[in-house]
Amino acid sequence: MATDRPTVIASPANPLVKQALAVREGRRPEAGTAFIEGARLIDTALQAGVVVERLFTLDGSHPALAQAVLAAGGTVSVVTPAVLRRLTQTVTPQGTVAIVRRPAPEWPSSASLAVVLAGVADPGNAGTIIRAADAVGADLVVCAAGTVSPYNAKAVRASMGSLFHVPVVTADASEVLRRLRNLGLRLVLADAAGDTGYLQCDFRVPVAIVLGGEAAGAGQVWRQAADATVRIPIFGRAESLNVALAAAVLLYEARRQRLEL
Amino acid sequence: MATDRPTVIASPANPLVKQALAVREGRRPEAGTAFIEGARLIDTALQAGVVVERLFTLDGSHPALAQAVLAAGGTVSVVTPAVLRRLTQTVTPQGTVAIVRRPAPEWPSSASLAVVLAGVADPGNAGTIIRAADAVGADLVVCAAGTVSPYNAKAVRASMGSLFHVPVVTADASEVLRRLRNLGLRLVLADAAGDTGYLQCDFRVPVAIVLGGEAAGAGQVWRQAADATVRIPIFGRAESLNVALAAAVLLYEARRQRLEL
Repeated sequence: MATDRPTVIASPANPLVKQALAVREGRRPEAGTAFIEGARLIDTALQAGVVVERLFTLDGSHPALAQAVLAAGGTVSVVTPAVLRRLTQTVTPQGTVAIVRRPAPEWPSSASLAVVLAGVADPGNAGTIIRAADAVGADLVVCAAGTVSPYNAKAVRASMGSLFHVPVVTADASEVLRRLRNLGLRLVLADAAGDTGYLQCDFRVPVAIVLGGEAAGAGQVWRQAADATVRIPIFGRAESLNVALAAAVLLYEARRQRLEL
Repeated sequence: MATDRPTVIASPANPLVKQALAVREGRRPEAGTAFIEGARLIDTALQAGVVVERLFTLDGSHPALAQAVLAAGGTVSVVTPAVLRRLTQTVTPQGTVAIVRRPAPEWPSSASLAVVLAGVADPGNAGTIIRAADAVGADLVVCAAGTVSPYNAKAVRASMGSLFHVPVVTADASEVLRRLRNLGLRLVLADAAGDTGYLQCDFRVPVAIVLGGEAAGAGQVWRQAADATVRIPIFGRAESLNVALAAAVLLYEARRQRLEL
């Protein structure tokens, strides 16, 4: 609980700071926690019911957020500006970071639009795709084996809070395929050499859009399981589209087709 | 010219290395040069007619590329692995970097599809948008004042070579507006609170799609000059779409409408 004169953490070697950095750098994957940065993102997480274990903030800054964290049972650690700089990664930090418990969403019992990350390695791409899935109102994002953790600190930032809006589940390919089949979703694999132009693909049925890795695309297991492979035509001299951009084009095409039913 | 026993640069303090790092870090904007990384990107630049001033490579690696650089009048500097590591920024470097002369494309005399970056600050977003503009076969990309340099090393990487495929011009807003008017382009501003849903916007006429900054959107000058402001609907709880994703959705919608003419 807050006291009138909080202890201020002044050393980057403080165990709580070192622990937070370990979470940030992904060195404590077993801990089930995630590092998030910025008052806005932390507030989004709180509002989504995420457990904020510890907020690191300057003395007197973000009083409302600190109060909300305390009210939800979390701890507030006051740090010096130097310690906060050590904790933050962004160029224009918002002056607070937090360690939160990772949500562990269940697989939904029904879904009409899902996104599967099948080997997306870049955290910026993964987070941006989660944000796009949220924007189109997708029911589910699946991170299959080989994809970066959605709780990678950079992925969390790129998701701009959408990680806490949409159910994001992680599983290996065989479980993912079984679950998607049980949900009755058609698997549409995005592929630069796909059989069908994306405008000719029927996205009005319940569908899971599968996105492969940036370098090699989706692996063999996904190619074999796909009900359709779709390509986004390239008109110029680019070899391909960034995977997050491909996701956005396909997701909005799905929405466009559904609005025109 | 190549000699049988090239001098190997072994010190990161070598003036050529320091000069290359200054270009990479944007500390020599007056020099008209750019830093690019990776054999594939350098090869793309060479094939697009870009002048490669100097290639830094390990002894014996990338012989065909080194030969092509020499044949085009450039210089090849052989460096030690330690010096190359100092020069490279990527996690999985392709073992070579180059200093190239920036292309200085003219404004085209006609255009039917252009993209204007009006304050896009993030180099990853800027480069990815240039790649998307190339993918849809846009005629022109304009970087208006307030936008990151397209020759920022990270922007160059994100463009995946498209910076050398599409004319990318930089100018201040008043010149940009005058040029776009002279080209007869309709200015369509992407805005989360735009007047028209993007599917209702007519992209079949010659059009310039204007994309504002990540944080504050496009400035007043662009809002006043725009012939239309379009929004991409948000169905979920995301506050907005990443600017590069918005660009891709609008550019592919323009292509979709034109194919259906």
